Amino acid sequence: MAKIEVLRLDSQQDDFSEQLDKLLAWESVSNKEVNQVVDEILQRVKADGDAAVVEYTNRFDRLNVASMAELEFSQSELQHALDSLPEEQREALTIAAQRVRDYHERQKGESWQYQEADGTLLGQKVTPMDKAGLYVPGGKASYPSSVLMNAIPAHVAGVEELIMVVPTPDGEVNQLVLAAAALAGVDRAFGIGGAQAVAALAYGTKTIPRVDKIVGPGNIFVATAKRAVYGTVGIDMIAGPSEILVICDGQTDPDWIAMDLFSQAEHDEDAQPILISNDAEFLDQVAVSIEKLLPTMEREAIISRSLADRAALIKVTDLEEAARVNNRIAPEHLELSVADPQALLPLIKHAGAIFMGRYTAEALGDYCAGPNHVLPTSGTARFSSPLGVYDFQKRSSLIMFSEDGASEMGKVASVLARGESLTAHARSAEYRIKG
Amino acid sequence: MAKIEVLRLDSQQDDFSEQLDKLLAWESVSNKEVNQVVDEILQRVKADGDAAVVEYTNRFDRLNVASMAELEFSQSELQHALDSLPEEQREALTIAAQRVRDYHERQKGESWQYQEADGTLLGQKVTPMDKAGLYVPGGKASYPSSVLMNAIPAHVAGVEELIMVVPTPDGEVNQLVLAAAALAGVDRAFGIGGAQAVAALAYGTKTIPRVDKIVGPGNIFVATAKRAVYGTVGIDMIAGPSEILVICDGQTDPDWIAMDLFSQAEHDEDAQPILISNDAEFLDQVAVSIEKLLPTMEREAIISRSLADRAALIKVTDLEEAARVNNRIAPEHLELSVADPQALLPLIKHAGAIFMGRYTAEALGDYCAGPNHVLPTSGTARFSSPLGVYDFQKRSSLIMFSEDGASEMGKVASVLARGESLTAHARSAEYRIKG
Repeated sequence: MAKIEVLRLDSQQDDFSEQLDKLLAWESVSNKEVNQVVDEILQRVKADGDAAVVEYTNRFDRLNVASMAELEFSQSELQHALDSLPEEQREALTIAAQRVRDYHERQKGESWQYQEADGTLLGQKVTPMDKAGLYVPGGKASYPSSVLMNAIPAHVAGVEELIMVVPTPDGEVNQLVLAAAALAGVDRAFGIGGAQAVAALAYGTKTIPRVDKIVGPGNIFVATAKRAVYGTVGIDMIAGPSEILVICDGQTDPDWIAMDLFSQAEHDEDAQPILISNDAEFLDQVAVSIEKLLPTMEREAIISRSLADRAALIKVTDLEEAARVNNRIAPEHLELSVADPQALLPLIKHAGAIFMGRYTAEALGDYCAGPNHVLPTSGTARFSSPLGVYDFQKRSSLIMFSEDGASEMGKVASVLARGESLTAHARSAEYRIKG
Repeated sequence: MAKIEVLRLDSQQDDFSEQLDKLLAWESVSNKEVNQVVDEILQRVKADGDAAVVEYTNRFDRLNVASMAELEFSQSELQHALDSLPEEQREALTIAAQRVRDYHERQKGESWQYQEADGTLLGQKVTPMDKAGLYVPGGKASYPSSVLMNAIPAHVAGVEELIMVVPTPDGEVNQLVLAAAALAGVDRAFGIGGAQAVAALAYGTKTIPRVDKIVGPGNIFVATAKRAVYGTVGIDMIAGPSEILVICDGQTDPDWIAMDLFSQAEHDEDAQPILISNDAEFLDQVAVSIEKLLPTMEREAIISRSLADRAALIKVTDLEEAARVNNRIAPEHLELSVADPQALLPLIKHAGAIFMGRYTAEALGDYCAGPNHVLPTSGTARFSSPLGVYDFQKRSSLIMFSEDGASEMGKVASVLARGESLTAHARSAEYRIKG
């Protein structure tokens, strides 16, 4: 294999800002043909329900089933998948599920209210959604850890019914995914996928309940369908390729850092691994480690493409500058592989998840640290958060005026409503003013 | 004016469920032509920045300005607008702003963390977005109260820079909006609107900063543009027509209830006012009040259309059933105009805002109760929340493994990663296992 050339940047170079923009540029391809296909599927499923879902599933997943009932997994199938796992895997999955549950319990929002002097009560009532839909990709990209990460927060939130969909192309069923579903408490599971599964969850069919929110990753058809039904149901963000940014002071074993970069790169040829250091020599050492370790990797081809096309080794002046560059990137994963990560933390404004210290490999967070591995990508950490319990809860404002409070505030509302020429508003408020 | 026939439904009628579905059906029109126009505007502004915004503004708002600088309001213009308000209005606006601020202070999310026995630290860091954009419609639908409701939560969250856009068609500037902007602490304000303003905020231009999230209502062009830039920036929900659901036990003055229904109906011909009662006679009384009061309303024409096309008076068996119907509707505004609203509250699962008791007119909540008046419409209260401080904050997961913790969890992660054939993940974790 040819030597991998990873892009080198230096914050002192004149065109650093432009080069960084170029490195980060990512356009999710919006495809007219895909849009058209997805629109048609959505309309068909909305109109014909189960029949359309069965038809599309037979066509796209090369199956031959007669009814939706044949596509539902029973609870005992899920449980059997869990019971049949090798003990080591079942134990690891169980530990991971427990840690994810423990962490997410702390995210649960609670209702609150307060009373004003005149007896007026204000607050917010926090309630779970009724039903949530979890999309799990089929085939190779089908990860049991993702089932845990998407299902457990919904459960902790108190969602009444959690419905999982996972396609089974050519009838291939991923037993690890079913096992994770059993462990995470999925209520119903269907062997369907693609835009037809998203449509079924968004609109409901005779067999598949209409949900309030759809979460989980998928291919371009799934992402396009999710974007299209956004508003009819809630959705999580539409994820881009995975990214890691490592900030290192040059004192971590360069092999560790190379492998941490690989652990993102192996996801996807478009994945983006970036290393920032104030130590130029260390960047060279990591480049050497990359050369040395790459041929030993099972996914060498994918990692090589990601490194060649999307990676960078960036030299900065000091760690403060590294933090500033981080804030510009707003990465999905940030490793602070430095002596004193707590000192650097206050300078970090934007990142999906922050892995602090040399021992905290990002890969630990993917599976069993506790926090969610569904994180904002492509710089969206500027304005979005890890998937969490809060994604399955919603709030209702509470307002209960006392007679005195309504009278006082009725006067204020009346002035403002008349200022906006909304006289029904004004008169409605004025009725509550004491004579 | 002809007698208004408001739809009557009874939960005991055979086709109640179908009739309710029909009543609630609402499709926001997605228009191919609008999509095309908006796409073109977005591309032009992305490519040409200020020049494109100036060109579109001159064309659509019938202005004749030479540069973006001419379209910026200075802070002293905003302050002057506030100082020039009639005292009664300035005072009312100030009281409203203070109450909105007080309520929203209680919504502010805080960072948290905890330590495990082996020293491992887990948590979540909560930070504000850097910049937020606030869209304010021009002309008649331009409401100073909306400026407060959108700007104050951003401020409380700690957003560093808040940028307001408000079109000034034919040069008409709404002084109340500028005054509210001064009061709410808007940092910069531009006299631009439409898809071009959304594009400028989403992509940034030389003059207009790129923001992290765009909030605020707008017409079909604005809504389409917001949907298109969703992902590049965050957006609030795309709002449908306003709705109110009143549940009344028949003991509130029917004139009050009629006026409360009017206060939603006057917003828009598509607005949806619904009254549910267990008292058939009371429904008749409200119908009489509607007939009596309607001719006295400034916005009689709009209210009449809303009542004729979208309203309903629904008879139910008891208040428990009323709550069940509410949960099916998931209304934007819910009034519990009953003797004991606290007793009914636990049965209410979905509503944007809940107005409790006979004195709590929905109109009070629009202006000065404190809670936000930007609320989920069209049944989206099933999965979304009032606009709040949380909309301008985001979270980063914190993970810091101790040496012991990384070693233990490295083993678990290794098993799971190898189960998913992600060997770089596994090896990255295994490096941290103690020998």
